[in-house]
Amino acid sequence: MPVNLNRRVRMQLSKVSTCSSSSSSSSSSCSVPGVSGATPTEEMNGAGNLMDFLDEPFPDVGTYEDFHTIDWLREKSRDTDRHRKITSKSKESIWELIKSLLDAWSGWVVMLLIGLLSGTLAGVIDLAVDWMTDLKEGVCLSAFWYSHEQCCWTSNETTFDDRDKCPQWQKWAELMTGHAEGAGAYVLNYFLYILWALLFSFLAVSLVRVFAPYACGSGIPEIKTILSGFIIRGYLGKWTLLIKTVTLVLAVSSGLSLGKEGPLVHVACCCGNLFCSLFSKYSKNEGKRREVLSAAAAAGVSVAFGAPIGGVLFSLEEVSYYFPLKTLWRSFFAALVAAFTLRSINPFGNSRLVLFYVEYHTPWYMAELVPFILLGVFGGLWGTLFIRANIAWCRRRKTTQLGKYPVLEVIAVTGITAVLAYPNPYTRRSTSELISELFNDCGALESSQLCDYINNPNMSRPVDDIPDRPAGPGVYNALWQLALALVFKIVITIFTFGMKIPSGLFIPSMAVGAIAGRIVGIAVEQMAYHHHDWIIFKNWCRPGADCVTPGLYAMVGAAACLGGVTRMTVSLVVIMFELTGGLEYIVPLMAAAVTSKWVADAFGKEGIYESHIQLNGYPYLDVRDEFTHRTLATDVMRPRRSEPPLAVLTQDTTTVEDVETLIKDTDYNGFPVVVSRESERLIGFVQRRDLTLAIKNARQKQDGVVSSSVVYFTEDAPQLPASNPQPLKLRRILNLSPFTVTDHTPMETVVDIFRKLGLRQCLVTRSGRLLGIITKKDVLRHMAQMMNQDPESIMFN
Amino acid sequence: MPVNLNRRVRMQLSKVSTCSSSSSSSSSSCSVPGVSGATPTEEMNGAGNLMDFLDEPFPDVGTYEDFHTIDWLREKSRDTDRHRKITSKSKESIWELIKSLLDAWSGWVVMLLIGLLSGTLAGVIDLAVDWMTDLKEGVCLSAFWYSHEQCCWTSNETTFDDRDKCPQWQKWAELMTGHAEGAGAYVLNYFLYILWALLFSFLAVSLVRVFAPYACGSGIPEIKTILSGFIIRGYLGKWTLLIKTVTLVLAVSSGLSLGKEGPLVHVACCCGNLFCSLFSKYSKNEGKRREVLSAAAAAGVSVAFGAPIGGVLFSLEEVSYYFPLKTLWRSFFAALVAAFTLRSINPFGNSRLVLFYVEYHTPWYMAELVPFILLGVFGGLWGTLFIRANIAWCRRRKTTQLGKYPVLEVIAVTGITAVLAYPNPYTRRSTSELISELFNDCGALESSQLCDYINNPNMSRPVDDIPDRPAGPGVYNALWQLALALVFKIVITIFTFGMKIPSGLFIPSMAVGAIAGRIVGIAVEQMAYHHHDWIIFKNWCRPGADCVTPGLYAMVGAAACLGGVTRMTVSLVVIMFELTGGLEYIVPLMAAAVTSKWVADAFGKEGIYESHIQLNGYPYLDVRDEFTHRTLATDVMRPRRSEPPLAVLTQDTTTVEDVETLIKDTDYNGFPVVVSRESERLIGFVQRRDLTLAIKNARQKQDGVVSSSVVYFTEDAPQLPASNPQPLKLRRILNLSPFTVTDHTPMETVVDIFRKLGLRQCLVTRSGRLLGIITKKDVLRHMAQMMNQDPESIMFN
Repeated sequence: MPVNLNRRVRMQLSKVSTCSSSSSSSSSSCSVPGVSGATPTEEMNGAGNLMDFLDEPFPDVGTYEDFHTIDWLREKSRDTDRHRKITSKSKESIWELIKSLLDAWSGWVVMLLIGLLSGTLAGVIDLAVDWMTDLKEGVCLSAFWYSHEQCCWTSNETTFDDRDKCPQWQKWAELMTGHAEGAGAYVLNYFLYILWALLFSFLAVSLVRVFAPYACGSGIPEIKTILSGFIIRGYLGKWTLLIKTVTLVLAVSSGLSLGKEGPLVHVACCCGNLFCSLFSKYSKNEGKRREVLSAAAAAGVSVAFGAPIGGVLFSLEEVSYYFPLKTLWRSFFAALVAAFTLRSINPFGNSRLVLFYVEYHTPWYMAELVPFILLGVFGGLWGTLFIRANIAWCRRRKTTQLGKYPVLEVIAVTGITAVLAYPNPYTRRSTSELISELFNDCGALESSQLCDYINNPNMSRPVDDIPDRPAGPGVYNALWQLALALVFKIVITIFTFGMKIPSGLFIPSMAVGAIAGRIVGIAVEQMAYHHHDWIIFKNWCRPGADCVTPGLYAMVGAAACLGGVTRMTVSLVVIMFELTGGLEYIVPLMAAAVTSKWVADAFGKEGIYESHIQLNGYPYLDVRDEFTHRTLATDVMRPRRSEPPLAVLTQDTTTVEDVETLIKDTDYNGFPVVVSRESERLIGFVQRRDLTLAIKNARQKQDGVVSSSVVYFTEDAPQLPASNPQPLKLRRILNLSPFTVTDHTPMETVVDIFRKLGLRQCLVTRSGRLLGIITKKDVLRHMAQMMNQDPESIMFN
Repeated sequence: MPVNLNRRVRMQLSKVSTCSSSSSSSSSSCSVPGVSGATPTEEMNGAGNLMDFLDEPFPDVGTYEDFHTIDWLREKSRDTDRHRKITSKSKESIWELIKSLLDAWSGWVVMLLIGLLSGTLAGVIDLAVDWMTDLKEGVCLSAFWYSHEQCCWTSNETTFDDRDKCPQWQKWAELMTGHAEGAGAYVLNYFLYILWALLFSFLAVSLVRVFAPYACGSGIPEIKTILSGFIIRGYLGKWTLLIKTVTLVLAVSSGLSLGKEGPLVHVACCCGNLFCSLFSKYSKNEGKRREVLSAAAAAGVSVAFGAPIGGVLFSLEEVSYYFPLKTLWRSFFAALVAAFTLRSINPFGNSRLVLFYVEYHTPWYMAELVPFILLGVFGGLWGTLFIRANIAWCRRRKTTQLGKYPVLEVIAVTGITAVLAYPNPYTRRSTSELISELFNDCGALESSQLCDYINNPNMSRPVDDIPDRPAGPGVYNALWQLALALVFKIVITIFTFGMKIPSGLFIPSMAVGAIAGRIVGIAVEQMAYHHHDWIIFKNWCRPGADCVTPGLYAMVGAAACLGGVTRMTVSLVVIMFELTGGLEYIVPLMAAAVTSKWVADAFGKEGIYESHIQLNGYPYLDVRDEFTHRTLATDVMRPRRSEPPLAVLTQDTTTVEDVETLIKDTDYNGFPVVVSRESERLIGFVQRRDLTLAIKNARQKQDGVVSSSVVYFTEDAPQLPASNPQPLKLRRILNLSPFTVTDHTPMETVVDIFRKLGLRQCLVTRSGRLLGIITKKDVLRHMAQMMNQDPESIMFN
């Protein structure tokens, strides 16, 4: 393990030393250190070498450096070559045939393994979180490793009415002083609650700081970037996997306003990356690896919510970049395996797959769409507020002294959270429990404050289908506490997301929405009860009927808020209905989700993940941004008019020395090769990395290659006087099919080509003459410029 | 309406007259007449003109001819231009701002309209089919427009035990002779059943033949082709919509072994096309139109099964070619609206959204996976058998005399179906009723033959959760009849699909699977009852428990068979669980669907739709086919070595006469423009259609343009002696950014580029010199060649 760590530290150091503009690697923000520094060297990003690299002339030809973009076309081409080789070999012997079959099945095996491991990890995380969350309040005397619920399950002295009270479970004050009630016990419990919270969060942030800086944050922005073709070594490593799993438990248990869903996607992707290394098909091909990672992301969401279909759609809609149909099937398989592994572990103890299982007994009515749409508007506004405030805070963290003290920041936020959360019963408990209670309909046997309605004494009590009743004092009390909890959650979540600990925002967002929704739901319910002669209620709400389900409002509110923050729509609705198991409520959910998206989009197109990608300056070409400006390739290509001409090689007149000078003087990652400087006819593209390796290799091993040797890329050696030194043939490292567009190509087409084909660079020609080059970074910079944003802030902040 | 018809007939005639190789236009197969003839003229398919066509120099520039492929990049570019224009205008006045907002919302409006209309049509179709199916057996005396079920609902004399018997409903024999029972009545009923079936199918085939030949078949292969960018005018026209709706009712009512699901997709797409014409945004842009059609396909499946999410996934997985995220959301919206419109019409009278609602009371056990997987194997084998046999039969129909008599064929198949179907109660009724009964679990109150179990007299009868019981004579009887029905369905479906009437195969495939599944289910159930001491049952099936649910087996079998035929996986599972409303059975369904796909794929990669696309020679570039051969662009491009050189224009030396000769002598749809024949430097590409129009226009309107006038494509007129006639500037019709690849580009990359960018053609260069051209058709032909298929049979059969 220290090896792994050392490698990471070394990598960071080397980045810091090579990248002068890197100032963020020491910041406490959750961005990948050094990325912003890495972008300048990414310029002219090597060749999209479509040649056959199976007989690689030198080691490392065809691999990528850290913080570089992969070439999708080339990866695909390499995989086809590999496949072709295996297929042709498979006819030779039985053994080769078996090997080829194993190769064909390896994708499914990887999916199975990912499903098993991520399901197991999710189960372990759930159990550990359960236990540690309860540990903040007390301990189980019969077996200290039991959570509160498990402790009282095993007890015989529990009555049905007081399910959560049993003598085996003791609060800290009771255990220490013997008194369970009273001001002293309250203060002691309060104090210990804060202490445990601080301990957990301190452990979490320290582990992240010391062992795996990549383990912080939700991980989804980085995974989106990786899936779009960027290389961040170690981001999905074993070490990150281990630390993220452990610190996720600590962070969630500490009671901070964060969830485990985003980090679980990161954990599942780490599992995917781990199992990729078992098969050279995936470990040696960055394109194929990303197919596996897309499926792993689906498995992650699947276990986070117990929603396999929603997980696949989430991966498709939100995370993935290249998602062929094959990946769709495999993702679904991985998501299913993961969900069922989790179910066998059964962390919730109810053999339900889903996180918040609810059953409502009444349908919804058309008139209720009005409050649902209002909740959608609230969700959109919340999304906008959260994104703007959170990004502003994260930017402040990056640019000011604040970023220097990540541990202190976490401790401070945890302290404030714990101090404010304890007095309010709705914030003291874990957020998922809160959501679960808010979603639930008040049954006849419910004893919570939220269900303290005044019963009609004349009415017999059926189990289900209780008519609307007037709210009792408990409900009004709960409303006040919920309103306070809402304000608290809104404010604290903004400061929590982005700290140097694992943190997802699905659960906090849903909590905000669920609280708002429940408040609205109770309000509508009471209005309907007290004013059922109003024209809006008259048609559908007779006295004595059960018209309004406040839990449904909570669910709709949760969907709206989550939608406002992430801008998911279809996957969100599917997740919500998988979560709750009801297809009947698809229209309320959809109405709220779409409204929320429209409202939020009106204030800014980007969801929280895209905003964080932009904030951290990752080279991510969003498939959703529409480029609608009338610029041409010639306006974007380098060199510009004022710049020196493009650095090119000629096919048979450059000497070894010329090449070495060029490599020394420039930092471009590749060079076009032309017939001659006069004709400027393009014949290919050569990567800097390959060129350096080839010349070094030739100098060492090939006799007669000296500085004045001519380098040639043609089929045959050029006709040279006999006195000249031996020439050096480099055609095998030349990419003979570089991608070209004409200078008159509209930029929208160029952007489309970059997106769809996953290019790294594209050469620009006019009438067959080479004019310039456009790299992915040029495209991104141009898009930022056109959208009236400061391009430098996008790329180098 | 005759206008529309005439247009279609004229079109067919013109195709027949121009295409010497067209022999299929008179065949009765459900292919689009003239397509195979159209392909030769599709050669070199015009320019991918990326210029701004908003100020179109001549009318019709930028449109496509029938049976041609669209250029996706150009359509996208045109839409961006339009959008840009509207946005810049919107700043001018309030009115323009409102117009721009309307434009932005038009997509949602179209979706709403599609949802409303397709939901309404589906409801009407359901009601009409219900009534007409029952009309074959009898009539409702109180109101002849009532179906059997509706008739007895309104009756007061119906008892619960004999729900489907009431005095108002009389069979034909009873009505005519007064005797309800006896051999005479049976024969009379039998005869009238056949007569009605023949009448319905004769009407259906005649309507299709006379009014809308495009209304036949399922339509999904054609819609896939259209969505991939092919133009088939009239295929989605109003006339097709009307006739397909009417004949679908007739065809389903006639009792033929066909379903309404595929045709409903076609109907929904016709609705989509209809509403596109309301907005110039969609009617004038073939790319945008296809986005709408993708969403309409989702709405079609949504109403066919009451499965909105499954519909969206079906459109994504099976039908669509270009499916951006925006389309995902809109599809979901359209699917939801359609489903809820259908629910408000409530054709099934149970206010359920889904077609086959089932509720099972017992979970499934791990050991049951074995029969489920066996059902998957059966489904795969059935899929293979069906595809091979059906394709062979359709090919025979195309190539022999059989194809000349489509009406006779339909009559004959209907006759055979009716004669064989009537005696067996499981084939006499409609196929969806059959599936519904097979899916259902036997409740305590069920009185059907399939639920004739021997009850334990000591046992009290609970409503649900009946333990496994021994089968009574009714069950054994039912098993025999089901086995016969299975054989009958398997054979007759092969001959039915592809006849000249609307026909879907979801329902017949599901019926085959459901019958097989139910038989297996009953077998397992009886084994478990009689041998519950066997080791395989011991662990999970105690005596007196309800272990096996035969209805679940039927559901799994249906999924397996549908999967084998269509090769859907994710959308299939989602549709199945939406159909039946249970998330619990996702693993059995998935296991069967994946097994079925693997088994079927082992015998041939293509599903039924791809096979029909191939059979009919549509230019469809499947995204799923992997091209793994090591050919280069130079091997595929035209001209070949033995052929005359590429027909090109020069930028400033060609005369009007030269151009006219070139247009007359060749039938290419476009010509590259080069600097000079010597240098072969490419400057652009010009479409034949645009060139013809431009010269005609100039000859008429521009003085001084004569045959010897020089045509020039440069910015400035060439330096010519004063005596020369006035030159003709054609730069504005020149596409300055034609797509190029080098001759060394691997064909797999070229295929990828064609697929992802939706190109029509691509020019091939070497060192900046133009070498040749690759059209979509060249790519398709090459792929067929490489897959060892006879390329001519693919393209020109």
